[in-house]
Amino acid sequence: MTTTWAPVPAGSGFGVENLPYGVFRPTTGAPRVGVRIGDHVLDLAAALGDPVFAAPSLNGFLARGRADWRRVRAEIVALLTDPARAAEGTAALYPVAEVTLLLPFEVADYVDFYASEHHATNLGRLFRPDSAALLPNWKHLPVGYHGRAGTVVPSGTPVVRPAGQRKAPSDEAPVFGPSVRLDIEAELGFVVGAGSDAGTPVPTGDFAEHVFGVCIVNDWSARDIQAWEYVPLGPFLGKSFATSISPWITPLEALEAARVATPAQDPEPLPHLRDAEDWGLDIELAVELNGETVSRPPYAPMYWSPAQMLAHMTSNGARLRTGDLFASGTISGPERDQRGSFIELTWNGAEPLRLADGTERTFLADGDAVTIRASAPAPGGGRIDLGEVTGRIAPAPA
Amino acid sequence: MTTTWAPVPAGSGFGVENLPYGVFRPTTGAPRVGVRIGDHVLDLAAALGDPVFAAPSLNGFLARGRADWRRVRAEIVALLTDPARAAEGTAALYPVAEVTLLLPFEVADYVDFYASEHHATNLGRLFRPDSAALLPNWKHLPVGYHGRAGTVVPSGTPVVRPAGQRKAPSDEAPVFGPSVRLDIEAELGFVVGAGSDAGTPVPTGDFAEHVFGVCIVNDWSARDIQAWEYVPLGPFLGKSFATSISPWITPLEALEAARVATPAQDPEPLPHLRDAEDWGLDIELAVELNGETVSRPPYAPMYWSPAQMLAHMTSNGARLRTGDLFASGTISGPERDQRGSFIELTWNGAEPLRLADGTERTFLADGDAVTIRASAPAPGGGRIDLGEVTGRIAPAPA
Repeated sequence: MTTTWAPVPAGSGFGVENLPYGVFRPTTGAPRVGVRIGDHVLDLAAALGDPVFAAPSLNGFLARGRADWRRVRAEIVALLTDPARAAEGTAALYPVAEVTLLLPFEVADYVDFYASEHHATNLGRLFRPDSAALLPNWKHLPVGYHGRAGTVVPSGTPVVRPAGQRKAPSDEAPVFGPSVRLDIEAELGFVVGAGSDAGTPVPTGDFAEHVFGVCIVNDWSARDIQAWEYVPLGPFLGKSFATSISPWITPLEALEAARVATPAQDPEPLPHLRDAEDWGLDIELAVELNGETVSRPPYAPMYWSPAQMLAHMTSNGARLRTGDLFASGTISGPERDQRGSFIELTWNGAEPLRLADGTERTFLADGDAVTIRASAPAPGGGRIDLGEVTGRIAPAPA
Repeated sequence: MTTTWAPVPAGSGFGVENLPYGVFRPTTGAPRVGVRIGDHVLDLAAALGDPVFAAPSLNGFLARGRADWRRVRAEIVALLTDPARAAEGTAALYPVAEVTLLLPFEVADYVDFYASEHHATNLGRLFRPDSAALLPNWKHLPVGYHGRAGTVVPSGTPVVRPAGQRKAPSDEAPVFGPSVRLDIEAELGFVVGAGSDAGTPVPTGDFAEHVFGVCIVNDWSARDIQAWEYVPLGPFLGKSFATSISPWITPLEALEAARVATPAQDPEPLPHLRDAEDWGLDIELAVELNGETVSRPPYAPMYWSPAQMLAHMTSNGARLRTGDLFASGTISGPERDQRGSFIELTWNGAEPLRLADGTERTFLADGDAVTIRASAPAPGGGRIDLGEVTGRIAPAPA
């Protein structure tokens, strides 16, 4: 562990090895960019004197590109590890408990992938029981689709139960009303900093030139709305009511010790999708329902790497913009208690979860709070904390 | 026809009844908002003295809402019809041939619907010949999905032939390369001006409170990429390389004479999707390939109205933002020469189009230029012109 003068509680995953970026509003004053150290936020505009951080979003900083991301991180580490600068730095620290954490960046386009073989297999079995679980394209390309950027919300935002049309196969006609199968999807999100030009695909080897960092994503899903609407153009209103993201964006530089190879890919991907470097990530997630851990999805078994997702997404020449967010899709491991959604955990409601408080759950009830946490190996041992994304279900309006 | 001092050529569809908004860059000077009158553009910042128009996008004006849209339109009409103000107004006119027309607004979220029964039936027959052409949900809700906002481009932008994966059913494995089935989709787009709050669905009767106006959309489509990727999450890279929009946004106020009822809807839609007013639109489109008209799609037979699309899109509580764009989906009428895509016009390539120059086309060739025009009835007779959206296919990079 690198030593800092800043107060970092024992066992904290927010040491100098981590330094995730976010946007916070102090008790008084305008929103601004900070990095988390221990249980404090370092006000970067104050600490570094760079006006790009005196802004309500990370976008200005993200747009500068990788060389600047590296330089700034080195400056922050230098400040936090130089005992002679403790007084100067302390003046720019706010207790995290005394600030409000906001959406860390303005989302340009939002894409959601479907990169877990276990998740895709589970959903294929549930939604298409009479066909092969994986569709023919699944092992040839990272399947994905565009979601609604305007409903990406910061952690803590209440999630109002959405209304929509649903129709069970046995129903004669659809009905409209509050979703009765409200679910989560535990995912990681990848935040694009440096954009790209139209017509110029981004090779897998350029992943870290464009992607700044990682957040935790809860892609709330109304399974009944989704099941009725999704053919042939894909999920729409079953997803577009809310997507929650964690307040901290962990830079790729902090995840060096988490990098692993993806599982063996068979068939071998076409040349433009072959990974130039390892961008699988040994990140562990935990899903809590009302404080009780109900699943521990591992990111390492994800079939497609985020570098492959990025190469695929731009292979048709689509440009990237600062603030583009692409998410992994639900992270489900091979074990039952590693599944990243309730539709998988309860096998479409057929096998309810029995909770510690004696109640059962298939899908989410009003008042339920879901928190997803994540952590990764730190360089030199220990772990870094990616924080959490949380949200509580509010009842549908009467 | 209302009389104006401004020069409007005989037969022009850009009289005082129309006045569509766009963003233009004069030979010298910064981009700004204007309205088109005849073959000129009226510089609104100069003419009205309102700094909201001294901006490179319409978004600031759009966000102000309907009362202001009406007030400004009345002010422009007053200026253009008062002979005493001809000198003042003429000083703010630029010949449209001497300016560059830009993307008229910053696109927030982009949604594409699928609202033509003829188009959905044609594509169902082509893509799923062994099933019913219309899927079970189609007459119960306007099927739609999110597209890529960052690749919406202004008319005139060259469209580079995209590369991607494709696999014919008879192929053993997919290949990667330039699309060999590049197509268009002739659509109308609806531009959201005033946003809405999260959790507050927009009823069909509030359509004109939120939607500012209409543009023409060409939703370029790589059919081979789309056919291989689109299950189960919908179209992605087959669409996301480019979506072209016309430079002029015709305000709903100019389309009063075009309003018609949608075709009879059977079954009757659920209550939240019932139209409170007529928002079908008697707009006629024309598709030109290299200057030759190959199709004349009529908007009037579209099954779902844009007010129904908006109500559906927000029925789960998703908020609207200024700059949201939603498009109708391909406009195809019942006749063969009313189809809005080449996959329909040539029946998936089986029935090539014979062109006046003696060549044939199934899908688009490099160098082909596609222009989509549209016009609508004007109040008091005559027609208003929605302008055109054009694009030429550039070859894939070597």
